[in-house]
Amino acid sequence: MDLGEFALIDCIRNQYKVPEEFLGIGDDCAVIPQRDGLETLLTTDMLMEGVHFLLDDVNPYSLGWKSAAVNISDIAGMGGKPVASFLSFALPKKLSDTFLKEFLRGYKDLSDRFDCPLLGGDTTSSLDRLCISVSVLGNCPSGLSRKRSAAQEGDIICVSGFLGDSAAGLQVILKGLERGELESELVRRHYRPVPRVGEGIALSMLPGVHAMMDISDGIGSDLRHILDESHKAAEVDIASLPLSEQLKEACHKYGWDPVKLALNGGEDYELLFTVSPEAFAEALPVPSYPIGRIVSGEGIRWIGRNEDFMGFRHF
Amino acid sequence: MDLGEFALIDCIRNQYKVPEEFLGIGDDCAVIPQRDGLETLLTTDMLMEGVHFLLDDVNPYSLGWKSAAVNISDIAGMGGKPVASFLSFALPKKLSDTFLKEFLRGYKDLSDRFDCPLLGGDTTSSLDRLCISVSVLGNCPSGLSRKRSAAQEGDIICVSGFLGDSAAGLQVILKGLERGELESELVRRHYRPVPRVGEGIALSMLPGVHAMMDISDGIGSDLRHILDESHKAAEVDIASLPLSEQLKEACHKYGWDPVKLALNGGEDYELLFTVSPEAFAEALPVPSYPIGRIVSGEGIRWIGRNEDFMGFRHF
Repeated sequence: MDLGEFALIDCIRNQYKVPEEFLGIGDDCAVIPQRDGLETLLTTDMLMEGVHFLLDDVNPYSLGWKSAAVNISDIAGMGGKPVASFLSFALPKKLSDTFLKEFLRGYKDLSDRFDCPLLGGDTTSSLDRLCISVSVLGNCPSGLSRKRSAAQEGDIICVSGFLGDSAAGLQVILKGLERGELESELVRRHYRPVPRVGEGIALSMLPGVHAMMDISDGIGSDLRHILDESHKAAEVDIASLPLSEQLKEACHKYGWDPVKLALNGGEDYELLFTVSPEAFAEALPVPSYPIGRIVSGEGIRWIGRNEDFMGFRHF
Repeated sequence: MDLGEFALIDCIRNQYKVPEEFLGIGDDCAVIPQRDGLETLLTTDMLMEGVHFLLDDVNPYSLGWKSAAVNISDIAGMGGKPVASFLSFALPKKLSDTFLKEFLRGYKDLSDRFDCPLLGGDTTSSLDRLCISVSVLGNCPSGLSRKRSAAQEGDIICVSGFLGDSAAGLQVILKGLERGELESELVRRHYRPVPRVGEGIALSMLPGVHAMMDISDGIGSDLRHILDESHKAAEVDIASLPLSEQLKEACHKYGWDPVKLALNGGEDYELLFTVSPEAFAEALPVPSYPIGRIVSGEGIRWIGRNEDFMGFRHF
């Protein structure tokens, strides 16, 4: 496989003519018009053992939680309401029934928070590794779903919460660090994201909120999607990135660079959105940390650092 | 993993309270009411290398075709119209770009036949094996989708086409038989099923057609789902099973049992439905081979054979 993820998506996009009224490949969700003033949203994600999680380390409850959360977060990223989810497994023989039951408990606990029942799926066997695929169906009033392509020059770029905690938690896991209170809290933020559903719906009702998506691959990657789709550029002020006290403390303790974790790490599952200065000045109804501005041109200028940040790469 | 597929589904079903207006786990698709006289249908299937296909043998075009077909067939099995599909891959490094492009070509050719655009999905890497997950969204007029639970005593059990060809094709593949015209044709029927979408829609418009589903695991398994959900029993007349000339010829040539292939084999992707004798007598608008009757009681009585047939087991 030499095609990167985004090259592959382009290849599919070029091959498929998507009907004009459908929003297709490229956003967090597909958007399919219904006839009754609602749009159907659909998103799907695959989680692979050895790539997205390590069976030895992951707590099955957390894995179930996160499998539901990352998909519901895609619905949130467009300002939608989750309606139902669909869960498919390929199960290796080594997996215990207890693992599966705990997985389902975590999946259900997160889903119940957002009133999103599990309505179907598929189960099959796998020769060696656990593979999980989740789809979530959602909806929103016609015309209110927020796309990546809607950023306007002059918009303020905002995020809905702290960046980098999840990436720091992943470092704790990958480096096998001893888990005190601080480390455990960061690991928890990696495994138990809470999608910003209410926040996304609230933002979708404000005409001044233009582009929106959830942060899954890190600002360094995700913001580029908004810029590519909107044909704009951005300036990001490194000093304004919202960082938690825990992240600062862990970076101090282990000599990590908080900016790299915040911009390249990913899996924050906060909202990334652009908003007109007027709407921003009126005070937004959800936590909103301004981190930069949409400008004309191409690419991202990182104010305060002489290097580039590309986000997390899957390939 | 000790839980069988159906035990796992029961476990999930018991844990999740599905809202009453939703039809959940247990049918080919989930059915979610919209507000405008339509119901949304959604189905999802996972295909694993080494379980559902062998990378050495499978033609990537055919694999793409079949990945789309088996999901569209689930929509057909409820009498729905496919609207859009979603494709996720986990890609091992060994996979070539050519493989992927051919896969997408096959996927698209089948999807185009049913006017079902690819609207999204997910791509990620896999440590060793190719894993594919497809979801298809469909719809049908409210109240017209056909469930497994609707079979009535006295109904005639019908299938929409030949049984066992796909299973015979799989035997050719697994046994590494030399492929003459006959063998190649059976392999083609295994790899290139054509979902019965038009047939399903036509049947869903007839009030006399009660339960319906597509045949994926073989009558020996699939008919039991209808009986379990409808709390009925069945008599199946072995002599009436529709068998193709190719199947008979291959069975003669290799000493295979056509009945076993027809009932245990699966992957026919024909429709299995039950219909009132009155509606059946009026001549159905699609090919319909009567194979038995719905009766009261439990289980299946196979008329003409002194053994039981259980269909294909995934675990």
